[in-house]
Amino acid sequence: MVIVMRLSASQEEIAAVNDELKRYGLEGHLIQGVNRFVIGAVGDRRDLVAQGLEVLPGVEKIVPIMRPFKLVSREAQEEPTVVRVKDVAIGGREIVLAAGPCAVESREQIYDAAVRVKAAGAKILRGGAYKPRTSPYSFQGLEEEGLKILAGAGEETGLATVSEVVDLPSLDVARGYVDMLQIGARNMQNFRLLQAAGRSGKPILLKRGLSATIEEWLMAAEYIMSEGNSQVVLCERGIRTFETATRNTLDLNAVPVVKELSHLPILIDPSHATGVARWVGPMSRAAIAAGADGLLVEVHPEPSKALSDGPQSLTPMAFTRLAQEVKRVAESVGRSLQDVKTPDQSRYTFAG
Amino acid sequence: MVIVMRLSASQEEIAAVNDELKRYGLEGHLIQGVNRFVIGAVGDRRDLVAQGLEVLPGVEKIVPIMRPFKLVSREAQEEPTVVRVKDVAIGGREIVLAAGPCAVESREQIYDAAVRVKAAGAKILRGGAYKPRTSPYSFQGLEEEGLKILAGAGEETGLATVSEVVDLPSLDVARGYVDMLQIGARNMQNFRLLQAAGRSGKPILLKRGLSATIEEWLMAAEYIMSEGNSQVVLCERGIRTFETATRNTLDLNAVPVVKELSHLPILIDPSHATGVARWVGPMSRAAIAAGADGLLVEVHPEPSKALSDGPQSLTPMAFTRLAQEVKRVAESVGRSLQDVKTPDQSRYTFAG
Amino acid sequence: MVIVMRLSASQEEIAAVNDELKRYGLEGHLIQGVNRFVIGAVGDRRDLVAQGLEVLPGVEKIVPIMRPFKLVSREAQEEPTVVRVKDVAIGGREIVLAAGPCAVESREQIYDAAVRVKAAGAKILRGGAYKPRTSPYSFQGLEEEGLKILAGAGEETGLATVSEVVDLPSLDVARGYVDMLQIGARNMQNFRLLQAAGRSGKPILLKRGLSATIEEWLMAAEYIMSEGNSQVVLCERGIRTFETATRNTLDLNAVPVVKELSHLPILIDPSHATGVARWVGPMSRAAIAAGADGLLVEVHPEPSKALSDGPQSLTPMAFTRLAQEVKRVAESVGRSLQDVKTPDQSRYTFAG
Amino acid sequence: MVIVMRLSASQEEIAAVNDELKRYGLEGHLIQGVNRFVIGAVGDRRDLVAQGLEVLPGVEKIVPIMRPFKLVSREAQEEPTVVRVKDVAIGGREIVLAAGPCAVESREQIYDAAVRVKAAGAKILRGGAYKPRTSPYSFQGLEEEGLKILAGAGEETGLATVSEVVDLPSLDVARGYVDMLQIGARNMQNFRLLQAAGRSGKPILLKRGLSATIEEWLMAAEYIMSEGNSQVVLCERGIRTFETATRNTLDLNAVPVVKELSHLPILIDPSHATGVARWVGPMSRAAIAAGADGLLVEVHPEPSKALSDGPQSLTPMAFTRLAQEVKRVAESVGRSLQDVKTPDQSRYTFAG
Repeated sequence: MVIVMRLSASQEEIAAVNDELKRYGLEGHLIQGVNRFVIGAVGDRRDLVAQGLEVLPGVEKIVPIMRPFKLVSREAQEEPTVVRVKDVAIGGREIVLAAGPCAVESREQIYDAAVRVKAAGAKILRGGAYKPRTSPYSFQGLEEEGLKILAGAGEETGLATVSEVVDLPSLDVARGYVDMLQIGARNMQNFRLLQAAGRSGKPILLKRGLSATIEEWLMAAEYIMSEGNSQVVLCERGIRTFETATRNTLDLNAVPVVKELSHLPILIDPSHATGVARWVGPMSRAAIAAGADGLLVEVHPEPSKALSDGPQSLTPMAFTRLAQEVKRVAESVGRSLQDVKTPDQSRYTFAG
Repeated sequence: MVIVMRLSASQEEIAAVNDELKRYGLEGHLIQGVNRFVIGAVGDRRDLVAQGLEVLPGVEKIVPIMRPFKLVSREAQEEPTVVRVKDVAIGGREIVLAAGPCAVESREQIYDAAVRVKAAGAKILRGGAYKPRTSPYSFQGLEEEGLKILAGAGEETGLATVSEVVDLPSLDVARGYVDMLQIGARNMQNFRLLQAAGRSGKPILLKRGLSATIEEWLMAAEYIMSEGNSQVVLCERGIRTFETATRNTLDLNAVPVVKELSHLPILIDPSHATGVARWVGPMSRAAIAAGADGLLVEVHPEPSKALSDGPQSLTPMAFTRLAQEVKRVAESVGRSLQDVKTPDQSRYTFAG
Repeated sequence: MVIVMRLSASQEEIAAVNDELKRYGLEGHLIQGVNRFVIGAVGDRRDLVAQGLEVLPGVEKIVPIMRPFKLVSREAQEEPTVVRVKDVAIGGREIVLAAGPCAVESREQIYDAAVRVKAAGAKILRGGAYKPRTSPYSFQGLEEEGLKILAGAGEETGLATVSEVVDLPSLDVARGYVDMLQIGARNMQNFRLLQAAGRSGKPILLKRGLSATIEEWLMAAEYIMSEGNSQVVLCERGIRTFETATRNTLDLNAVPVVKELSHLPILIDPSHATGVARWVGPMSRAAIAAGADGLLVEVHPEPSKALSDGPQSLTPMAFTRLAQEVKRVAESVGRSLQDVKTPDQSRYTFAG
Repeated sequence: MVIVMRLSASQEEIAAVNDELKRYGLEGHLIQGVNRFVIGAVGDRRDLVAQGLEVLPGVEKIVPIMRPFKLVSREAQEEPTVVRVKDVAIGGREIVLAAGPCAVESREQIYDAAVRVKAAGAKILRGGAYKPRTSPYSFQGLEEEGLKILAGAGEETGLATVSEVVDLPSLDVARGYVDMLQIGARNMQNFRLLQAAGRSGKPILLKRGLSATIEEWLMAAEYIMSEGNSQVVLCERGIRTFETATRNTLDLNAVPVVKELSHLPILIDPSHATGVARWVGPMSRAAIAAGADGLLVEVHPEPSKALSDGPQSLTPMAFTRLAQEVKRVAESVGRSLQDVKTPDQSRYTFAG
């Protein structure tokens, strides 16, 4: 950390900052700049509350140098983490497709979705049982009944399952049914939930908050890891910006940035990121080309009947096509998608 | 709601949309535009899931007309709501000052703060016992012990108390100690917590999320009200934008907008909104001039020793001065601040 | 500037950075941190292109310490600048009201507006002759003819005049007619125009860009001042955020931040900031309470007939009321508004 | 356009709106909603100034239905536009690489860059002669001398050339030297410059503004096309958001959105979008996978010596590798990159 002193800072004020640094166990290096003093403080800011320094007389500002995360960082572990969900590995050479409806609505709907996304190449079945909805008057999910249905569909098809948890009780229930727990964007800084996820013994899918910086997102993962759970998969799903043409702005820059800062795998959710089914394909291809480890895609047997997020849901047929397109892109960047059939080449004539 | 059809929409597609509208109990009015059809659907979109329409063939987009909230709206209740916290009324002619440290750190700290903010004119004592912190390595709060201390200070000084709750267990504990429960910015869309707040029997201080639109914020209040609790006070605390000179961007536009859309009172938190103690004064004055019903200000007996948010905390002396300045502004816009001493006029010579 | 080296940086790489610093005339101070080296570089980054350093092997990042502006900074001049526009002083104890229609539409419209805003207490008449419009099919302004009309109305009423310039030719024309030249938000980083404004010999009203940081805005002012023109007035008019309830988000935090960093005066434009006439009043009061030096308000004799920005324009009567309200707020913070009549106190009974 | 009336709107107010609509040549369709009236206005909002309606008594808001652009829209022209720059076609099956340094610094630098980007497969040479810089103290470009050098390098290598223009004089000069004129992000709403570009007779590369919506960007293109120039290429280069880990946030969603709304081709500038050379590769691959028609990449023979944007510039060797990677991705989505050598397959073993 660097402490920038004001132009007018006195020798006494500089000495007081140095004393305070010592109190924190830090060593201060005084640098005389062109027209002010700067103090380089050596030590680990991550274990201390150094905000008090900013309030000391003569201090203009504190500039942090080190990143605040530890366990999630590449410095802590150079090898990429491969997270295992049932028998599916996320973070290896093989791209992982997770797919299914936004919400579990009925046994028929989920079984239909499960069979068809599996046939298309998906390895993980998604479906929400606890739905965080902007309006209290919207469908809020089938809760435990929904988890039962999802788990049944997973068992029957052999797909691994993932579902969102929204508080401690839902997490406790979901642990008994699904293979992976999802923390949604709106709960990314629900620190109690993160800590419980860290003690859950389950792999966690951690979505990025709508307005979370990459650093804050990694700190949320740090919460989970600091409780002893290293099975964390990050998921970018679009951030909130001024642009209204799309539901959110997909931040694919996050893929190489996360890969550089952290050893954790990263998926992309192109459905929430765009909000429009016909833009999910291009963004899925882009995500894999950027280096993402897989996709989380909303697929509904009948999007116009969906109780939630219909406009961004793919039909099973559209998902099959997407998987084939993604397979080709994956191979072009040295990745693979083994159980997806090679598409008919003739489809790829450029049409503008 | 208006359904805009594509240029190429066929008569069959238009008929199918009309059938779907009937299924929802809505009446469709077909309007032939210059080069496309538009269907005006009459009914209440708030009770239905109309997203499926967007997926029907031939539909280009859906344009909502009505606002999604009911109970919080001015249309539902024209009279402003006055929320009572112990014997303090929020939303009347009298401006309310809530003040205290970010976190409850010790008995001495809170009692000292309580006595001094009361002397300055505050009516409500704030202090966090459950702290949502970005880093798992930061001070997380004294929890129930902190609430006990806060409640004791409230009793002794006669101040009402408010403290943040972060999940269902902390809400259950806090109900027994404090006069008002705060839902923090990061939990504004923690819908389970909102519902529990709605059943808590306590007045709720609902902070705006960092990237929440005003409409989403009012929908969060709707969650609380829809559980039967009408004692909701909104609190704007800065939103996240591209600007980094300040911790957040205080959105004072929200004051007249909220006053127009809703009957609920609104406070401003200038401390989190700026992140810098010396900018809290100007923003407090601006908030009251804009029409806010009060302020939530961080005050710490010794900011440089604060375990959280020191740089944005006022000293008790600075808060006393702020209260006097705010009183004068309040009176200039037809509001009052009764227990604040009229400041010495000579202080107000303009210095540039 | 601080150069943070990578964990793995070698002694040779550190030496190479030091050599490069010497080449720039900077002195490097090596600090050995807990697990990496950091180099403090002493010198003035504002005169050099130091970006090359970031590319050197072993360098992780560059952290700037000093602010990039010089002439506009409080460090360069502690006294506030008072800008004179004709006989109006902006930046003193007296609050300045600039008002008038968005666009000059006709002689009648401007004269009517001029007489009435003057009667209400305005000192400066605004009116656009060169209109930057999002659509090429919208009214683009009367150009020189509009300037003539504006200048005539200024002369007749004794009001100073301000009008926007959009390129070098319009600047050359406008210099001959108006007392102050406005650089609009969309041209805030039109550096050629800024330089020409710096050589124009006229006071400049520099609006903040929709997505400009305060630092970039001050750098735009630095462009003008570096050409020898110190008569610059800043004007905050709302920034672009995710919120859509208002046209823009008024960033009043900018007032104390600008006052701290710079000696230049600052006005607020509540009309563009909100986009809605009925929210202009509250934001005007807030602006003055925050410490702004004046307001730039859109007033149209008949808003429903305006060729541009009707919805955010006040009627002359509403502006008169606004001026009276602002006067009271101004006095509550030690400022004045001399030619505004004291309003009838009875109007200020609180109505919720 | 839909006019939503207030709850309390009277029959007289509704009649007045209808009269006003007639005045504009629009036909009003009255729809009685559940608790308010809504008026559907049939006509083309793009030719009129309908803002006045919003100010009429009883009107709550205006909801636009039609998009404001004409010539740039897919509705106006279904076939994709192929823009020809010298002998290079942008918008066809073939992906186009434009590359070169941020700024023209010297003859040696440009010739070196030109030869090497051509060898790597680039068809267009970029280089800035008029540099819009945030600081007046930074290198501002070689101006006409720079254009001469750039044009010479283009002729000698057979590459087409593109360079930024910043005002009318620079546009007039640049027309004589380069094959394509670039309008930079900061000038995207410099409408005078757009109009001049529309009359220049040259193909235009139109960058998206930092905070421009896709609609505003297309309206900027409409300015150019409305002056008779249909040779417009759009270029997304990152938008401004709250995220600070990258220089800007690359909005790849814009690719499918633009392709749907418009017939114009679109390039991606991954250099400005990330600000960091090592993230340019992943974002280039993603851009092509998303459907972009090409890339604009900063390449400098010696990035650490660059006078501008060194940290985001690729070395020629890195650009050669990028071209090969992009070629493979292009082919995976049915596009081609003919003059790029097929890379050695063995390089593509996944390393995590």
